[in-house]
Amino acid sequence: MPSVADTPWDGLIVGASLATLDADAGYGGIEDGAIGWRDGILAYVGPRAALPGDPAALARQTIDAGGGWITPALIDCHTHLVFAGDRAGEFEQRLQGASYEQIARAGGGIVSTVRATRAADEAELLAQSLPRARALLADGVATIEIKSGYGLDYDNERKMLRVARRIGEALGIGVRTTFLGAHALPPEFAGNPDGYIDRVCEWLPRLHAEGLVDAVDAFCERIGFDAAQTRRVFEAARALGLPVKLHADQLSDGDGAALVAEFGGLSADHVEHTSVGGVRAMAEHGTVAVLLPGAFHVLRETKLPPLDEFRARHVPMAVATDCNPGTSPLQSLRLAMALACTHFKLTPEEALRGATVHAARALGLHDRGALRAGMRADFAHWAIAQPAELCYWLGGNSLRSVYIGGNRAHSL
Amino acid sequence: MPSVADTPWDGLIVGASLATLDADAGYGGIEDGAIGWRDGILAYVGPRAALPGDPAALARQTIDAGGGWITPALIDCHTHLVFAGDRAGEFEQRLQGASYEQIARAGGGIVSTVRATRAADEAELLAQSLPRARALLADGVATIEIKSGYGLDYDNERKMLRVARRIGEALGIGVRTTFLGAHALPPEFAGNPDGYIDRVCEWLPRLHAEGLVDAVDAFCERIGFDAAQTRRVFEAARALGLPVKLHADQLSDGDGAALVAEFGGLSADHVEHTSVGGVRAMAEHGTVAVLLPGAFHVLRETKLPPLDEFRARHVPMAVATDCNPGTSPLQSLRLAMALACTHFKLTPEEALRGATVHAARALGLHDRGALRAGMRADFAHWAIAQPAELCYWLGGNSLRSVYIGGNRAHSL
Ligand SMILES: [Zn+2]
Ligand SMILES: [Zn+2]
Repeated sequence: MPSVADTPWDGLIVGASLATLDADAGYGGIEDGAIGWRDGILAYVGPRAALPGDPAALARQTIDAGGGWITPALIDCHTHLVFAGDRAGEFEQRLQGASYEQIARAGGGIVSTVRATRAADEAELLAQSLPRARALLADGVATIEIKSGYGLDYDNERKMLRVARRIGEALGIGVRTTFLGAHALPPEFAGNPDGYIDRVCEWLPRLHAEGLVDAVDAFCERIGFDAAQTRRVFEAARALGLPVKLHADQLSDGDGAALVAEFGGLSADHVEHTSVGGVRAMAEHGTVAVLLPGAFHVLRETKLPPLDEFRARHVPMAVATDCNPGTSPLQSLRLAMALACTHFKLTPEEALRGATVHAARALGLHDRGALRAGMRADFAHWAIAQPAELCYWLGGNSLRSVYIGGNRAHSL
Repeated sequence: MPSVADTPWDGLIVGASLATLDADAGYGGIEDGAIGWRDGILAYVGPRAALPGDPAALARQTIDAGGGWITPALIDCHTHLVFAGDRAGEFEQRLQGASYEQIARAGGGIVSTVRATRAADEAELLAQSLPRARALLADGVATIEIKSGYGLDYDNERKMLRVARRIGEALGIGVRTTFLGAHALPPEFAGNPDGYIDRVCEWLPRLHAEGLVDAVDAFCERIGFDAAQTRRVFEAARALGLPVKLHADQLSDGDGAALVAEFGGLSADHVEHTSVGGVRAMAEHGTVAVLLPGAFHVLRETKLPPLDEFRARHVPMAVATDCNPGTSPLQSLRLAMALACTHFKLTPEEALRGATVHAARALGLHDRGALRAGMRADFAHWAIAQPAELCYWLGGNSLRSVYIGGNRAHSL
């Protein structure tokens, strides 16, 4: 510990309990805790009583939280929140009795989002997407993964990824971009998925060269791309040293989890229909299972992911919003956690770990997700009496503040 | 129309579309609408182009909404939001595998809420309950029904009802109180439910004399009170000219809907197990069906209310949060509407009508719930492109402002 006089911390917060999540199990609870930071990095996490000196001398500013709990800031590791338009009309038509086919014939479905996203210029796309990122931030989220995949041509995929970067700058939050060119087949490639995958594999190095791609994803499903096509996308990613992840086994078991694990993938996402063999492959390669209860809820699915297999084989489970206009118009990670508890019977601790420690791991980030000295000073302060309340309440807003790299976010 | 010069309106808002809900079907949509009010009452609801004079001369202040939609302010017609403590610990224990029996043995369940509510003084109970009412308000709710039922003795039921009134004063919202002494059997009356109902019937006139009771409710269920006991409570209410409502047929068909209809009741609430005979009785007596999808969701129920019967017999369906610490820790009426769409397949229009027009009717209020001249100037302005978005998004916050009696609420 350097001497106090020449290196005061930038900030110190006291007067709350801490859920550090800094161990394999339990909340890592510290009553009457203190968190000190300097240069955006946590310098002290522990009991207030064990602070190494006089708080007034230690830190430029000392904040009294006045009760409640501090957790790591939340991390949403799977979103499609950059898009134009919405699909509320389609949602309404379905509830009025229209079939998926009727909606598709009327120009609905993902193609309507692709059309609207292509039509919006970059400023308009940013203006429409920013409120969704702000809603996540208002719920304690400091790091968001954002996928492309509604452009489906070079210029529009690039536009989406640029907007994702600009959201990070505008809100001062962490954004990790994922290139999801292989999300759906654009109309102009109808009947020629392999030709489209050729394009996707050409676009990737160009987008990467611009610094727009942190990871690569695909939609591997009967109604998406097959294993051979997915493999080609992953090989293009591997050639660039980019990590991969996959929309896997959501509607049927397509061996997607095993495929992405084979490539040492960061995560297999959805995984409702993943087989035991898939779970085994994920365990072997350290691939995270990203659970997306929002889509499960909206689609009124009943097939649960193999949760006990994940637990038994120590596959980390993350929880994310999947924020998207079709199957998960979900703008609250806390609500995703609550849905994971109700639909998947995750414990509140598993859900919180899933939106912090394991979500960081699903993004390949080792500098956040738990509270301990040396990690980023990303934390959230909540007006709650126990951590389980984060998953228990539906709606409401118990967030008091969120700090990102030691700075209090003001876009709430 | 009085002349403009001597009777200017207090306010005029333009620049948004209106969903007036001022007809039996449809949103009652008006593009480029205008709403004028005076003395807290709507004076004009219609197209901006049809305004009867120069806006600048008509109103003391003219507000440009800048787009979006204006709906009637929402009405939450069934809540238990006054309580102390919470049951997040119990929620967590259940997800960790504890049975309801184990939790009850450990002092959990409703008795733990009764204990905490009795232990809190009036100021503390208000402090704990106010944030929940504020969360509803932040979601566009301007009128809230609040039940007693965690005191279960005279002083504590009275304390709860007083706190409910104080919430209305503190936030400037409409509060309708409901005496729910017959919610559960307090420990001191174990084995003697009829003796407890004697007490409930004695407390009611005293509480009513203090102006604390707008309606009377009971929990009619195998694990609550039987039909004969419920009937005694309703007769006590009738003697005072107080309207009744009932927690009916939630877990089993106990003919609760028919019973409350027989008393000309305002509403039968929950009604998952209500029989066709019950629906017929409700239709005959104009009793509203209050749907509570939050409890349905949290309890993972599967038995749907008889929705098609309600529709066929024109029984109005309301939607409410049922905000309570045990089975529905739900602090967002918009989320209740979304859950009603997903779980009960209500259309977004039915859900919105259920949280406005039909909710007003469930409270016996004829002065709110729709936008038309002569109604209270209670309205909400949303940053949405179509009304269905109110039910489509999960989380997020599209509310821009809410006006209550013509005054903009500032406690958001
Ligand atoms: Zn997705
Ligand atoms: Zn209730």
